[in-house]
Amino acid sequence: MPTVTSIQFDLVARPHGEPTTDDVVRVERTLPELADGEVRVENEFLSVDPYMRGRMNDVRSYIPPFALGEALTGAAVGHVVESRSPDFAVGDTVQHQLGWRDVAQGPSAAFRAAPRLPGLPLSVHLGALGISGITAWVGLTVIAKLRKGDTVFVSGAAGGVGSMVGQIARLKGASRVVGSAGSAEKVELLTGKYRFDAAFNYKDGDVRGQLHAAASDGIDVYFDNVGGEHLEAALDAFNDGGRAALCGAIADYNATDGGSGIRFTSNIVTRGLTLQGFTMTNYGQYAPQFAADMQRWLADGSIVFDETVVTGIDNTFDAFTGMMRGDNVGKMIVAI
Amino acid sequence: MPTVTSIQFDLVARPHGEPTTDDVVRVERTLPELADGEVRVENEFLSVDPYMRGRMNDVRSYIPPFALGEALTGAAVGHVVESRSPDFAVGDTVQHQLGWRDVAQGPSAAFRAAPRLPGLPLSVHLGALGISGITAWVGLTVIAKLRKGDTVFVSGAAGGVGSMVGQIARLKGASRVVGSAGSAEKVELLTGKYRFDAAFNYKDGDVRGQLHAAASDGIDVYFDNVGGEHLEAALDAFNDGGRAALCGAIADYNATDGGSGIRFTSNIVTRGLTLQGFTMTNYGQYAPQFAADMQRWLADGSIVFDETVVTGIDNTFDAFTGMMRGDNVGKMIVAI
Repeated sequence: MPTVTSIQFDLVARPHGEPTTDDVVRVERTLPELADGEVRVENEFLSVDPYMRGRMNDVRSYIPPFALGEALTGAAVGHVVESRSPDFAVGDTVQHQLGWRDVAQGPSAAFRAAPRLPGLPLSVHLGALGISGITAWVGLTVIAKLRKGDTVFVSGAAGGVGSMVGQIARLKGASRVVGSAGSAEKVELLTGKYRFDAAFNYKDGDVRGQLHAAASDGIDVYFDNVGGEHLEAALDAFNDGGRAALCGAIADYNATDGGSGIRFTSNIVTRGLTLQGFTMTNYGQYAPQFAADMQRWLADGSIVFDETVVTGIDNTFDAFTGMMRGDNVGKMIVAI
Repeated sequence: MPTVTSIQFDLVARPHGEPTTDDVVRVERTLPELADGEVRVENEFLSVDPYMRGRMNDVRSYIPPFALGEALTGAAVGHVVESRSPDFAVGDTVQHQLGWRDVAQGPSAAFRAAPRLPGLPLSVHLGALGISGITAWVGLTVIAKLRKGDTVFVSGAAGGVGSMVGQIARLKGASRVVGSAGSAEKVELLTGKYRFDAAFNYKDGDVRGQLHAAASDGIDVYFDNVGGEHLEAALDAFNDGGRAALCGAIADYNATDGGSGIRFTSNIVTRGLTLQGFTMTNYGQYAPQFAADMQRWLADGSIVFDETVVTGIDNTFDAFTGMMRGDNVGKMIVAI
């Protein structure tokens, strides 16, 4: 048998603030032969996501931290190149959590079928039909309990999750959808292709003022990808009984001292607000409902999506830090 | 018929920051004769509560602001001195919302029977058996969804609501109850008479550090009467899945710029926390369940309470500002 190697990325230091190339090193590992029940997969696309920054810290969180000296992992899709399991045949396309590498292998239970769908890239299983889409769907419906007629605000609205939030909110009956993004081009994308009612560029400053202008009757639901100044603006803009689904706090992920100080928290009391943080680890039971909705929406064109594709396994770390800076439009993907 | 007058307090200016005697003036009003269906009540005890500070501002909140040039109102108990309604006879004791005055009158529907209970002052209907008690009960059970074995933290724990929270939490199965208060004497009261497991004086500073020391395994439920630094400390101390019932933000009620900046909000995401603000306007349906619990607990001595009684209707405003400063132990009451 020829030797098979896998390019991987080991976490060698815990980032203090923004991760640097000193924290992560590229390694090439020789893979053992497959054991009974195992499969080997050539990855085609990798996902880089904000939550990975949290796992680089050694603090308790909803998923355990990455271990120092071990390879990073994440969502990926690829095709089976060798199988010693009856569950998968060579050529089957699969999704799994052994990303940040070009070749992955393990017991068949670690892999799940991910069919190639007509007119869609395989990477859709990492974005609209994957973690981005279900995160948006669960946040809006289960966590924020979206009601018909609600005004919905989503921050980081041009990202993988945010672009899904705005479109799903409209399809689920929101009367007004407002988004923020980090460039004029993204703002145009929101009100154009993604059909938001209003959008603004948070890099222009005065997030509170811009949100008030875009939602002058207040907001009922806030889907938070950003934290910081955005969360503060939402607290100030909420109508009575408002609900926030807190999905990300990218503004604070690199913070080392508790992050931004959020004002207007006393509105939580006076307006009877509910803020709920959530992560998909606890909501897998909604996958079938979500998939039924999203497959229909993708098929009939109700939902559109973008990907920012970085090519080459060696650029995975750059893709990650670029995503953290907001370089992406839609889901950030690494194509191998 | 002799003329009947009522001493009342009109809001004449909206306080900017801490309310002063320039904002509220004492007036004596001549009352009209009773119309059919009305009753007249001599108040015996008045309640002064933190939420009243919010009503002095002209901003939307869960209850409308007090109107300028009109008399303040609030919870009160007293006895009927004249009745033109079949619902109440002279001598009946009642509770109602026409406080901040010595004589109140209106349609019988504005009054509710409040029996004198053996061994308890009539003012118990303003405290343990009234708004303080039900606020604690609803916050713990309905909002924070207290579970057996939870560690519970309550701020402002020696006040009217806080002292109920700690005792109800224990009776409902909390394994550890921690409180903060604003003096060494109050801290002693918490761990003594109210049987908290641990308590600290927040005026000693470092609320985060003191909370970590008092609840080294983290907290599961936080009942917030204070906001500000206390809310920040709770966010830092929460275990995964922690729940906060936000009842008050007394630290921020006099704020004019959005209040304190709260750090550690990104923990809401990473630990899957839920923060819910609530006010009793929306939870009246729990009154029968609450009353059944509390009457039993008061009768068998499971729950004890304190009152700080200020005597004299003319001291009502001072009682209010004193309560806002934390001068009270247990419920702040004005005896007329």
